[in-house]
Amino acid sequence: KTYNIAAIPGDGIGVDITDAASQVLNTIASAHGGFKFNFTTFDWSSKAYLERGWYMPEDGMDQLKKHDAIYFGAVGWPSVPDHISLWGLILPIRKNMNQYVNVRPTRVLKGVTAPLSQIKEKPKELDWIIIRENSEGEYAGQGGTTHEHGTNAIATEVAIFTYVGIERIMRFAFETAKSRPRKKLTMVTKSNAQRHGMVLWDKVFYEVAKDYEGVVEHDKMLVDAMTVRMVNKPESMDTIVATNLHADILSDLAAALAGSIGIAPSSNLDPTRSCPSMFEPIHGSAPDIAGQGIANPIGAFWSAAEMVRWVGQGSLDKTADQLMEAIENISERGVRTRDMGGQASTKEVTDAVCKEVEAI
Amino acid sequence: KTYNIAAIPGDGIGVDITDAASQVLNTIASAHGGFKFNFTTFDWSSKAYLERGWYMPEDGMDQLKKHDAIYFGAVGWPSVPDHISLWGLILPIRKNMNQYVNVRPTRVLKGVTAPLSQIKEKPKELDWIIIRENSEGEYAGQGGTTHEHGTNAIATEVAIFTYVGIERIMRFAFETAKSRPRKKLTMVTKSNAQRHGMVLWDKVFYEVAKDYEGVVEHDKMLVDAMTVRMVNKPESMDTIVATNLHADILSDLAAALAGSIGIAPSSNLDPTRSCPSMFEPIHGSAPDIAGQGIANPIGAFWSAAEMVRWVGQGSLDKTADQLMEAIENISERGVRTRDMGGQASTKEVTDAVCKEVEAI
Ligand SMILES: CC(C)[C@H](C(=O)O)[C@@H](O)C(=O)O
Ligand SMILES: CC(C)[C@H](C(=O)O)[C@@H](O)C(=O)O
Repeated sequence: KTYNIAAIPGDGIGVDITDAASQVLNTIASAHGGFKFNFTTFDWSSKAYLERGWYMPEDGMDQLKKHDAIYFGAVGWPSVPDHISLWGLILPIRKNMNQYVNVRPTRVLKGVTAPLSQIKEKPKELDWIIIRENSEGEYAGQGGTTHEHGTNAIATEVAIFTYVGIERIMRFAFETAKSRPRKKLTMVTKSNAQRHGMVLWDKVFYEVAKDYEGVVEHDKMLVDAMTVRMVNKPESMDTIVATNLHADILSDLAAALAGSIGIAPSSNLDPTRSCPSMFEPIHGSAPDIAGQGIANPIGAFWSAAEMVRWVGQGSLDKTADQLMEAIENISERGVRTRDMGGQASTKEVTDAVCKEVEAI
Repeated sequence: KTYNIAAIPGDGIGVDITDAASQVLNTIASAHGGFKFNFTTFDWSSKAYLERGWYMPEDGMDQLKKHDAIYFGAVGWPSVPDHISLWGLILPIRKNMNQYVNVRPTRVLKGVTAPLSQIKEKPKELDWIIIRENSEGEYAGQGGTTHEHGTNAIATEVAIFTYVGIERIMRFAFETAKSRPRKKLTMVTKSNAQRHGMVLWDKVFYEVAKDYEGVVEHDKMLVDAMTVRMVNKPESMDTIVATNLHADILSDLAAALAGSIGIAPSSNLDPTRSCPSMFEPIHGSAPDIAGQGIANPIGAFWSAAEMVRWVGQGSLDKTADQLMEAIENISERGVRTRDMGGQASTKEVTDAVCKEVEAI
């Protein structure tokens, strides 16, 4: 079986780590023998935008739809305003490809022990999966500016929450919680200060919760207090569901607490499988270290493992597990990039992971 | 000189800590001799709301205006939906009393050493002052719900940013940064994903920055990446300015990283002094420990110290400093509540701080 992957390296270290990820993916495919990946690389990036004025061509979404999955590096470059680059590339893909779930697992990998993790004690008790609403909320894109120039300017950001949008993310979150050993879901909100959309968010949560009574334990946290709980009681949580913005913030915090933002993966999923899902590390394009060959490829490999799991629909879980095992073995053995306290280059980590995959 | 203070204990531990704060405030006034506090206590609380249907009377704002400052405990109680209690009490005061700045200092107090602070290394290098926009943004209160019942429901939260509102908070932030030794301001935004109001926020920041060129060093952070920097590089920041929601989240995280949410103070300021400013610890009403006499009063005392500083307009800075010194001495000596790793009751900490104030 051949899986067709649309690869969008994008900007900065997005290029470095997409290269590394495709090397690892090809290695696991040949180690397994039963399938392969066919990569089509799209040069949709800020560099290209600066040359030709657009990120994606008119038929970009149709091109993507022909693939089984999308592998994304990173987008963002100093010479393009961030809202132009992001609304030119990553955000429209998430929205148009119906990727309404963004899954962000965080745990302390084997090689990452107390000296690396910023939480002093019991870092192993940090094992979360953050389910991020990925299609509406604070990223709806609506709003605008009136009297743009001068001191009368007024601008709005309109966060939009729909019953349908909330219900589907809550169901996904409860199902995820149910599939994990602890069967525990923490819902994040800011319905004390935001009294319209967030109140609907809460209401739908409790409605969906009824279908999981006695099956999934649930509780509710305000987003501000949630940061405190993440720092102080990591062991008290398992699956977490939050809005587009809240989960964006909390997943970065989670990654920092677990050791490094360079480790953390994300899966933009269309659970209906009508469109290809997209897999990307949560880190950005890191212009300061781009092209130096020192970016941490672990987040990219973990994302690749999730992609393998997703496209395989159950048939490749063992392969994905093996890749994760290889990553942890390598990190445990001390083959780590600088952000993880090591000295290794991107290439050294990549080669080591490939060798390990072949050995397992 | 007599300072008239409107005391609003509110709910839960708000009552415990407001009592404690007034005891300490009376003690510093008599120790000093040159001034006193005249407290008027308002029974605006969730308990009263449940009895009579309202939090504040119609002329509530006029009553508050007759005071030099407002001391606030906490609001929020399980039997009242949070958005009712907060929009019934704390949020209208912040808005109607023109308290457009919320100042949230965070540092690791003397008694709080590595075993308490969650940041493993160099906790002393965490010394921030967060300037929170307190009048508009994500807390503007606008938005609504259409098709409220059933699965067609759609709700919006409208965040509103005005040039005037942004400019005044930026000026306050730059002035604060300028007054501190490091003269460094970090501005937080999410203008990559939120492309209207947040873009205006950035623009006004850079405009105001021009007036501080060569005087205040400044940089910009995305709110998600900011959490990572707070965990990993606390020493790299000093003054921080952020929107109503972002700063709400970041200030809780800051408090957790610095040791305990029970320590952190906040000042809701009207810098024009046309209305009384309001001082409140950042922690909530903590229904689970309310009335048990174990709440940490340190955040309340620190808030009281900031109130003394504010009403004194320069004449009571030494008194405020003495109160802070007393707090730190006591905490260093190990008289600490449970959240800070100690065994002391609210009363024990309060009595100890009062004694210390008298001794200094
Ligand atoms: C690049 C940016 C739009 C993005 C987001 O805010 O969603 C990133 O921070 C992420 O978390 O994937
Ligand atoms: C009680 C609530 C409205 C409040 C806020 O969100 O502003 C609190 O969290 C705070 O930080 O003061």
